[in-house]
Order: sequence, then structure tokens, then C-alpha cells
Amino acid sequence: MATLAQNRYGKSRVRLSRITRLSDRHLFNEWTVHVMLEGDFAASYTDADNSNVLPTDTMKNTVYYVARRSHAQNIEAFAMELGDYLLSNHAQIAKVGIAVEEKTWERMILDGAPEATTFKLGGPELQTVRADRARGRAWQIVSGIAGLTILKTTKSAFTGYVRDKLTTLKPATDRIFGTCATVEWEYTAPAPDFAQVRAQVTAALLKTFAAHNSLSVQHTLFDMGKAALDAAPEIARIRLSMPNLHHLLANLEPFGLDNPNHIFVPIDEPHGTIEATVER
Amino acid sequence: MATLAQNRYGKSRVRLSRITRLSDRHLFNEWTVHVMLEGDFAASYTDADNSNVLPTDTMKNTVYYVARRSHAQNIEAFAMELGDYLLSNHAQIAKVGIAVEEKTWERMILDGAPEATTFKLGGPELQTVRADRARGRAWQIVSGIAGLTILKTTKSAFTGYVRDKLTTLKPATDRIFGTCATVEWEYTAPAPDFAQVRAQVTAALLKTFAAHNSLSVQHTLFDMGKAALDAAPEIARIRLSMPNLHHLLANLEPFGLDNPNHIFVPIDEPHGTIEATVER
Amino acid sequence: MATLAQNRYGKSRVRLSRITRLSDRHLFNEWTVHVMLEGDFAASYTDADNSNVLPTDTMKNTVYYVARRSHAQNIEAFAMELGDYLLSNHAQIAKVGIAVEEKTWERMILDGAPEATTFKLGGPELQTVRADRARGRAWQIVSGIAGLTILKTTKSAFTGYVRDKLTTLKPATDRIFGTCATVEWEYTAPAPDFAQVRAQVTAALLKTFAAHNSLSVQHTLFDMGKAALDAAPEIARIRLSMPNLHHLLANLEPFGLDNPNHIFVPIDEPHGTIEATVER
Amino acid sequence: MATLAQNRYGKSRVRLSRITRLSDRHLFNEWTVHVMLEGDFAASYTDADNSNVLPTDTMKNTVYYVARRSHAQNIEAFAMELGDYLLSNHAQIAKVGIAVEEKTWERMILDGAPEATTFKLGGPELQTVRADRARGRAWQIVSGIAGLTILKTTKSAFTGYVRDKLTTLKPATDRIFGTCATVEWEYTAPAPDFAQVRAQVTAALLKTFAAHNSLSVQHTLFDMGKAALDAAPEIARIRLSMPNLHHLLANLEPFGLDNPNHIFVPIDEPHGTIEATVER
Repeated sequence: MATLAQNRYGKSRVRLSRITRLSDRHLFNEWTVHVMLEGDFAASYTDADNSNVLPTDTMKNTVYYVARRSHAQNIEAFAMELGDYLLSNHAQIAKVGIAVEEKTWERMILDGAPEATTFKLGGPELQTVRADRARGRAWQIVSGIAGLTILKTTKSAFTGYVRDKLTTLKPATDRIFGTCATVEWEYTAPAPDFAQVRAQVTAALLKTFAAHNSLSVQHTLFDMGKAALDAAPEIARIRLSMPNLHHLLANLEPFGLDNPNHIFVPIDEPHGTIEATVER
Repeated sequence: MATLAQNRYGKSRVRLSRITRLSDRHLFNEWTVHVMLEGDFAASYTDADNSNVLPTDTMKNTVYYVARRSHAQNIEAFAMELGDYLLSNHAQIAKVGIAVEEKTWERMILDGAPEATTFKLGGPELQTVRADRARGRAWQIVSGIAGLTILKTTKSAFTGYVRDKLTTLKPATDRIFGTCATVEWEYTAPAPDFAQVRAQVTAALLKTFAAHNSLSVQHTLFDMGKAALDAAPEIARIRLSMPNLHHLLANLEPFGLDNPNHIFVPIDEPHGTIEATVER
Repeated sequence: MATLAQNRYGKSRVRLSRITRLSDRHLFNEWTVHVMLEGDFAASYTDADNSNVLPTDTMKNTVYYVARRSHAQNIEAFAMELGDYLLSNHAQIAKVGIAVEEKTWERMILDGAPEATTFKLGGPELQTVRADRARGRAWQIVSGIAGLTILKTTKSAFTGYVRDKLTTLKPATDRIFGTCATVEWEYTAPAPDFAQVRAQVTAALLKTFAAHNSLSVQHTLFDMGKAALDAAPEIARIRLSMPNLHHLLANLEPFGLDNPNHIFVPIDEPHGTIEATVER
Repeated sequence: MATLAQNRYGKSRVRLSRITRLSDRHLFNEWTVHVMLEGDFAASYTDADNSNVLPTDTMKNTVYYVARRSHAQNIEAFAMELGDYLLSNHAQIAKVGIAVEEKTWERMILDGAPEATTFKLGGPELQTVRADRARGRAWQIVSGIAGLTILKTTKSAFTGYVRDKLTTLKPATDRIFGTCATVEWEYTAPAPDFAQVRAQVTAALLKTFAAHNSLSVQHTLFDMGKAALDAAPEIARIRLSMPNLHHLLANLEPFGLDNPNHIFVPIDEPHGTIEATVER
């Protein structure tokens, strides 16, 4: 006999852009929103009873409806507004999960001056939030950045590791260190200034990455996490996933040329993956 | 003060292809392998001490070394061989996680006859396994299929759902039902015939999808899971994630044309997401 | 002073799916349509005069309108119907270019029997057409296949090539030959049986690829083209682009293992690219 | 009888990164290089005679060899060095085509100060060059930018277009104008300052896009091209391809809300495509 265990459903990839019209300039945001619901939905699976099912199409409409009425200035605030709307209006929902990703539209700078109404897409990173609320409980907010693509051309080494019969890697005292970092942080208290914390965490991560005398990806990852905790007292812990996007030194010996860390072969795969959570 | 909490590292996207030479034909497999380790690695993060660190480059070499010596006939067997090699040879590893994805290379059929040594890439789905083992414990094996892209042109309805002021969806008694399913199953006992179970589960999923008089994605998903449990006694539970890849009826009324379920607009986003675990 | 030279505009990526209801089964097609127009449009660029501009949104509507009324049984016929509708209804158009790509939805086979109304997405290849017509002239039709992903595990060699001081490649008498071929063919006469020619060309390409004792990608490409010309008298020429998707023999010598063409490392980049047109 | 018509071959997606060590900082470039050759290669297709075939693997080696010895400060100079090396060393080559794409690694700015050795990946656009040379002839250089993703929130209208029975688009006097532009320009004389021209062209394009009172994509495209020609006398013509990446006004009327250009639905497909060449 089969029974239904964990189940949830929702609408994914609801895209939305928003113009905020200030007196002297426009703000522009582009978000992708994901809604997931848990609750009294088992009968839709087991008995084809849709009477409690909020159509995912309606969730999409709800995203736009809430966005129009919202004054949210960041993705965290919008996620909570959207989730609370759903919880308030549909008693059969026991838990909402809202995720939002924001693209890096940057104000265009021309001749040193910011343009009031023109934007350029910046780096591949996305600003992210995952916001979950069980009915009657507090919001659980996890903010983050996905795909932060950064690279340093020096101050990176990797030596002293395990050597066995399958080792072919040569120790490196000066190598390229490139990564496409995904970072998520949780908060110590319910209502932080999300934008300020995001700015503090991001600055701490980038500064540490740049300045660090890295002896391994692990070493730098931990110190980046530590720096973020130091910079933003509002965060309780931070999780970093940092693939090692290798740039291999091109082997030019067969052609009679040296290669003193000059020409490299970047590869996407395979790549190292280093992950850890750093907390207080 | 910052402390290191959860941490792991490994090598991702190690690609490998293999020819198996039978007397009358070749077998061909293309796998992507991911290795993740947990264990006595904290000092690499906190003290830049790499003395316990097995380089991810060596993990890559290990994949090829084990593959050459292996007689594994499926990804589950290979994942376990690889993980056991790592556990046996490196005492500092407390837990290995191996994931493998296999592409759908299909033997080419020409004039009705199978080609001995020629293959064609089939559907986008990947055969998958996630295999985890803590030192001294049994293997935890989760087999699956990712991206199984299937569609039916009838026997799909969606009616009787919640209607509120944000509802614009019209009830449908005959609609297209398309999905790109990701499925994972766990086993009841340690050494099943992985290939046979995979074949049984896949057949049960496809048959149920085709035959079902679907009253919602939830309804079909549950019955697909139930059918898989019925077909393969070796599995304990099965998790299905089935996005609803919408084909919207093209609105031709403004042009004076009817559209009796003839012409549709397929969209990738937004999409419904329906997920559940079905177990005995 | 600046002048407007070549210009064209249109609508790209108009997606459409279609159910054709036969007495005993459904047919299902999913197409992506692209429309490009040339004609009396210069004033829209140079004088902001839109009076001749057919909005690209209307082109999208036209795709659905024509599809609903169409009985086209293949993408070539539909492309011509769509283009002729545009030429007939808008005198300012001097030339239409229609491109259509069709996905490989395959009828599902269960227990050896074809399902009447259920489909599974097959290989990554797309069936393609580019159809161009200048007003008052005949249609120029180029049919094709994009992304045909095939591989053979033997009967492929590469020796006897130029060797110079930058050569590190070793001659191979038995290697994997994988490609993701893109092929296009033109016709000798205006109204061939497009579906039959497509089937003949495809069969000839696949058979030759499988059977060929390849001495280079160039060698096989040419003989594939020749076979297609032999198989389908209706085609005048055929162009093939065949990347060499390398599977490199894994180097296991450092670990004391041989590797008699058993374990390989597939790579996506860099890749060889071999292109030629074969004609009568 | 089949004959070989046009043919060419080469190596695609050769990736390379380079550190240039200045006294006070590093420069970092990441390029993807493509090599295509035409010449005396017909026998490799028709007679399996590889004696003139330079392996594509050797082309890859050549890219790294030339890069190590090069002092090229831009992709145009490198493309010509690489092509000239191939022409000089292999008499059977009649024509080389080199293409290079450069990623937008930007120097990291921390607390307002540029980092000497740390970089962040910027926008999705690629700096490009296509450089072709027939033996004994001059280089033909086409520089460009691919994927320049920009958006303005006002000063964009579209009215006065053709209206017919398939028209549903409403005239817009204030809409979002987003594009992902691909631009290529040719030169009037053989040895321009490529970097300076690139900077001038890019600045002119962005300024015009931002300032323009757009009455259509065509209108803005033409004026962008005109501005580039005005800004850089060294260029002879410029080709722009500007998809119209639509942000549709969310329809909130069914929910009793207005939407004064506040909330939009961005879509990737379908999209308008507008292309033209502007020349002196």
C-alpha cells in the first residue's frame, strides 16, 4: 500500500520587473519569484480532490497583485509580504516558502555621471532570498548571493597536501584563484536592515578575498566567512560554496618555451568544490 | 568569534566515457562523477593546515583509476566502488558522497538492426545515483532519473480548485500535460539488482503517465509513485518532482477563429512545480 | 553623413505546439518560428516613420492565425504558408525569411506498442528549415538537422597528418569519433516530398557514419554528403558541419595501468570543427 | 557524382587566460579563440589523404605558443599575430579566419580604490573580433561587442504602425526598452588604435541609447549607429542587431488595480529582432 509522505507545490520562475519613480531618477528591479506551499493538500494527490488547491496560475497573479501594492525596498521585504498575503487569505496553507532572485541591473554611468533612467546588466551574480514561514511562527529568512564570479592573479598557494600513488598535482606557491561563489546567511534577530547587512557582508567577502594570502580555498573561504560575521553583527551564520575554477598553467615545455605564470588554460570542468558554514 | 560548522569538499563534474568490448558488440557509457568528502579536514579551514587534504585533482585521478579496474555494470556499482576505494585508502575521510549521472547514449538502429559500435544521444534525461557512506556504516543509495521529458495530448483535466478574486484560470477538462520529471527512489534492502529495478520503475512511471485519467498533476504524480512501488518491491519510497510545463491554448478569438484544442503556446516560465514522496 | 545600408527586422522564437487529431491517434508537433522581413522600412530607421512597420507582435499573432488554418504536414510547408500570407497581405514587404525548428517529440512505445496520445522528447537534434522568398520569385528552401549527436567506438583513425615543432598529437588507428552534426540541404526542384527527402537524407547520413572506415572527420563527412546525394535525387547540395567532440584516452601510465581504449575523458572544448558542402 | 565545394576546418573554443605583470598591478585577460583554415585540403575529404592536414590539436598548441611570445594588447592584435604565424608556417593554407572573444573581467574596486591583482566578472557582453586574411592580401578586421545588455525605463514609444485584423498591440507612448545588442564595425584604414576606437564606439552607443527619445527600436538603432560613425572616424560601417527584450505591462484590471507603468512581466521569448548596417 502506498502512502503520501512529504508533499508541496507551487509556482516557479514568476518573472517581474518594477519601476520606482523618484523625483530625480528611476529605480529598476528585475526579480524572479518562486512560491511553494505546504498544507492541507493531501487529498489532491490521493483522491483527486482539488477543493483546497490554489492554482499555481493564481499564485502567479498574486505575485503581480502584491507587487503592485507593495512598497518593499528589497527582496526580503517583498518575500515576506507575498508569503503573508498567501497565509492570510488561504487557511489551508500551513507553510509558505518564497524565494526571490534579483538581477544585477546597475545604473549606467556616462562621463562620470549616473543616468537617471538607464541601466546596464552587471555581473552574473544574483541577489537571493529564501523566506519560509509556518503559520503562527516567525519568518525564517536566508539571504544570499549566487554566482559571485571573482578571481585573483596572485596571493594563492596550495602545498603540503596528501601525496599518494594517484597524486599528479604539483604544489603551487603562486596560482590563479578563481571562483563563482554562492553564499547564504541567516540572521540573529527578526528585523534587520536587510540592505545594509547585504552591503556589509558583500564588502567583507570581497575585501577578504582580495587581501588574503590564501594557502587553500578552504583557508580563504573560512576567513571570508569570519570577516562577514565580524562585519555584520546581525548575521548568525554564513554558508559559502566556492568552486575552484581552475586556470591550468599551459605546458609549453615541448615547444622550448618557459611559462612563468603567464599563459593559462581556464577550464569549467572538472572543478573543485569547497563548502562550509561559519558561525559564531 | 567564528567557528567552523558543517564543511565538505570534493571534485565536481569529472567526466568519463567507457567502451566495454563484448564479442559481438561494444557497450558505451558516458558518466559525470561528483565526489564529496567529510572528515578530519577542519584544520585546512581554520589553520591553513593541508596535511589531511586529499587534493581534488587526486580525486579526479582516482575516478579514472577506479574506472579502469572496475567491472561495474551500472552507476550504482561504480559509485560504491569509488567511494569504498576512497574510504579504504584515506583514514581521515569520515563520509563519502558520490554522485553519478549517465547520458542516454542509445544503440543506433539501422534498417531495424542494432549497430554493434554506433550510438545516438537520446532524450535529455539523465540516469542518476547519489551514494553516501559513513565509515563503518552501510551505503545509502538513491537512484533516479533527472529531466524525463514527457507529454500527453489528452486525458488531463484540472477543475474544482479554489476560486478567489485573483483567479483568472479557466477550468480545463482536456488539456496538454507536459512535464520534465525528476524522480528518485530508495531501496528496502542493501543489494538489489539496480538495473532491473530501474527498468521496472521507469516502465511503471511511463505506463501510468500514459494511461492515467489525470485530474491534476498531483493526482497523476501520486499514482505514478504508487505504480512504481507496486512494480518494484525493492524500493522503499519514491520522490517525484513534476513541473507543469504549460502549453497555453492560443487565443484566436480576436481574429474570429475558434481553437478547439488545436494550437497552443508552450512556455518554459513560469511553471507549476508539484513534488511529493510516496512510500509504503 | 550616415546612411542606412542592409536592414531587416522580425520576430524570433515564436513557440507553437499543435495537436492533430486522427481517428486512432494524435500527432503532436512543437515548433519554434522566426520571421524576418525586408522591404520598404527605411523610413522607420531614418525618419522615425512607423507607417509601414508591421509590429513584431502582429507577426507573432500571424504565426498562430496561419497555424490554426493550416494543414501543413511539415515545417517546410508551414514556412511557405506563413511567408505567403505575409507577402500577400503587406505590400511593403519585399522579402520574407521564415525559419522553423521542430523538437524531437517521439511517440511513446509501451510494451512494444505505440501510445496513441503520449510522447517523449527524444534526442537533442532539431529538424530545421530556412525558407526565403523575394516578392515575385520562387521560394528558396533549405532543410536541415541541427545538433544530431552521434558517436562510434571504433572504425575511426587519424594518421599521416602534418607534423611540426608544435605537434603533440599522437597518430590514432582506433579512436572514438563523436560529433554533433548540423546539416543543411537544398533542392533541385521546387516541390519535393519534404518528409520523404528528410527521411532519405537522414538514413543515408546515419548509415554512412556507422559503416565508414573513417580516416579523418573530413573523410567521413564527405562520404556522408555523397551518400545523401545518392539517396535523394531531389537534393542539389548538402552542407555538413561536424565538430569533433573529443574523447581523450585517459592517461593512466603514472598509476601503472594500461588503457587499451577503455576509459576516456570526454571534453566539450576545445573542439575541432570540420565543414564542407558536397554537391553534384 | 559528388564534388567537394566550399570547405574549411579548424579548432573552436580554445580558451586562454593571461596575466600581464606591470610594476604596480596585474592585467588579466580571458579569451576564447577560434581558428578556421581554407586551402589545399580537398584531398583529405575526397581521398583520405591527410598529408596537408594540420591537426586541430596543433592549432590549439599554436594558440598557446603564440600567446606566450605575444605582446598583443588587444584581441585584434593577437588575432593577426596568430593568423600570420599560421600563414607563415604552413604553405597549404590559403586563408585564415581567427575569432576571439574576451570576457568582461573588471578590476575590483574596494573602498573606492582599484585592487592591483583582483578582478570581478562584469556584464554578460563579450568583446569580439573576427579577423580574416587571404594569403598575400590585407587583413579584414571586424571588431565588435556581443550581448551588451542595457535597458531604459522611459523615453521609448511605439505608435503609428500598421494596424490590421491581426493587430492586438496597443500603441505605447512610454514603455521599457531593453535589449541585448550585438554590434560589429569595420575600419576605414588598416592600422587603427583598436582599443581607442572600441572605447569611442562603445561610449557613443551607450550615450545615444540613454539620451534618445526613441520612437521605435529601428529609430534608436539607426541613431546609435550614426553616433558611432561620428565618434570614430576610423570606422567605415557598423552593424547592429538589437532584439527587443519585452517587458509587458502586467494586466491588473481583473483585480481592480491600475498599473501606471509600475509592474511588468519580462519575457525572453518571443522577441522582436531589429538589424541594420549604418555606413558613411
